[in-house]
Amino acid sequence: MVTLKDIEAAHERIRPLIHRTPVFTNSSLNKLSGAELYFKCDNFQKAGSFKIRGATNTVEQLTIEELNRGVATTSSGNHGAALSMAVTRRGGKTKVVMPNNTPEIKVNNVERNGGEVVWCEPEQESRESVLKELIEKTGAVVVHPYNDERIMAGQGTCAKELLEDYPDLDTIVSPVSGGGLLSGTLLSSKALKANIQVFGAEPVEADDAYRSLKLGKIVPNETINTICDGLRAQIGTLTFPVIADLVDDIITVTEEEIIDSMRMIWERLKMIVEPSSSITLGAILKNKDRFNGKKVGLIISGGNVDLDHLPW
Amino acid sequence: MVTLKDIEAAHERIRPLIHRTPVFTNSSLNKLSGAELYFKCDNFQKAGSFKIRGATNTVEQLTIEELNRGVATTSSGNHGAALSMAVTRRGGKTKVVMPNNTPEIKVNNVERNGGEVVWCEPEQESRESVLKELIEKTGAVVVHPYNDERIMAGQGTCAKELLEDYPDLDTIVSPVSGGGLLSGTLLSSKALKANIQVFGAEPVEADDAYRSLKLGKIVPNETINTICDGLRAQIGTLTFPVIADLVDDIITVTEEEIIDSMRMIWERLKMIVEPSSSITLGAILKNKDRFNGKKVGLIISGGNVDLDHLPW
Repeated sequence: MVTLKDIEAAHERIRPLIHRTPVFTNSSLNKLSGAELYFKCDNFQKAGSFKIRGATNTVEQLTIEELNRGVATTSSGNHGAALSMAVTRRGGKTKVVMPNNTPEIKVNNVERNGGEVVWCEPEQESRESVLKELIEKTGAVVVHPYNDERIMAGQGTCAKELLEDYPDLDTIVSPVSGGGLLSGTLLSSKALKANIQVFGAEPVEADDAYRSLKLGKIVPNETINTICDGLRAQIGTLTFPVIADLVDDIITVTEEEIIDSMRMIWERLKMIVEPSSSITLGAILKNKDRFNGKKVGLIISGGNVDLDHLPW
Repeated sequence: MVTLKDIEAAHERIRPLIHRTPVFTNSSLNKLSGAELYFKCDNFQKAGSFKIRGATNTVEQLTIEELNRGVATTSSGNHGAALSMAVTRRGGKTKVVMPNNTPEIKVNNVERNGGEVVWCEPEQESRESVLKELIEKTGAVVVHPYNDERIMAGQGTCAKELLEDYPDLDTIVSPVSGGGLLSGTLLSSKALKANIQVFGAEPVEADDAYRSLKLGKIVPNETINTICDGLRAQIGTLTFPVIADLVDDIITVTEEEIIDSMRMIWERLKMIVEPSSSITLGAILKNKDRFNGKKVGLIISGGNVDLDHLPW
């Protein structure tokens, strides 16, 4: 079980190796939402997303022997790039199993950070079978993108920084996919501030976490037909219990709402965010009553977008 | 003559009304350029550009009688939006003369901030004649976008903040159009640090400042056929003498170099910058020898881009 102590230790470990990302505000979006919004900008993070937090926390704890065996993972892209950066920094090699529909920019990010891409089909089963084969062949150490306590502790440092900067937040909204970021956010923020509310934001088109929460047990995604290429993974066996225990609710968001909120953030905040991040604003704008008058932190998880294929 | 005292007074005056914008760094662009780059992000500034600095400094000094006559200006957009914001805040009305080829987002920004648009042709002569007619009809007070010492002092606060955060910069690169930002940058940075180098970056396609500098007298633009809609104005009679006296050089940049550098900043720094801002990176990348090993500040002047018409 990950504790606040683990998250604090992770923060000490990774602090010199990551950016302390800024928190942005925007008066026109405050007016539009009826809430006070605080955007925690991990789109400006090293390797372009929050994933460097968990990856660095994990890789820094590998032994030399483990590193020498090589490191492998499956990733829609951001974890792969982050892991490659963390492993390359320590002089190791990374193999990243990626779906063959991954945006080019995410492939480039893996390669730019020294990782090697191994292709698979977009479905969860293909990701896992290709990875399994790879491990059997090479003996590589797997660093899972989310179902790992070291990863969860690392991802928890993002909300920790946000609450250090803005201790009087009432609420935090985080995207949810495999659950590493949301469970980390829950573990750090609920430990730091007992009465804070934390919501997950998930695409209607990949709503396994929402349905799992309502049913009280893990169920698979029925579709992953969402523009949010970072939110197509399956909720994890380690992350789900934390979410089921601590989350205030999961809000599902349509593709149109995700794209609208993405464009709004680009235009008003002048920053590039993935649809997988703008979903947090979409969740707030469709539930104005729930957030009205509150100070709300939004975890902006990444900014790796293919500029040749924008959704408008 | 604008002094450091004037810039310090401007800063005191506007500080509560503007953002203290962050300074970003990026290791991959450092590697590419061979320099240490410090991006001063006024694209995140209120109303989307540095223009709020000079506009606020000026409007805050208007008397109630002046405000009641109404305020007017010509603007390619960013000054118009900023002036409208500053005037609306004090309860006044703004009329903005804008070229009819201005990107829609800049028109929207004027209107969102309470200004009223009055159309003109893109050429400098049309801007001025439409404005003159407007003043004769309404008696409005003109706040010129750059040829005004209050504006120049306000724009100087951007480099002042940058040097407060990074006092050991060797060099600053600023875009140049009418010269308000470059003259303000020169006046503050050369006063704060005697041995700092300051360069202007200007489109080849609108190079009046460059040619004026070489000839030692103001000459007009021969074309304004540049994607940099913020850099099509004519160098001013108040700004040019400061630039001629203090600037280390003006570097001209081609359209292709401007667009390439814009895309690089979007992809690597995950932030939305205008071509009129990315020109600073373009100037550095085409002159690597000149900046090699130096700590270089780049004034990122604005982020108002029409997302439906990207240049790639």
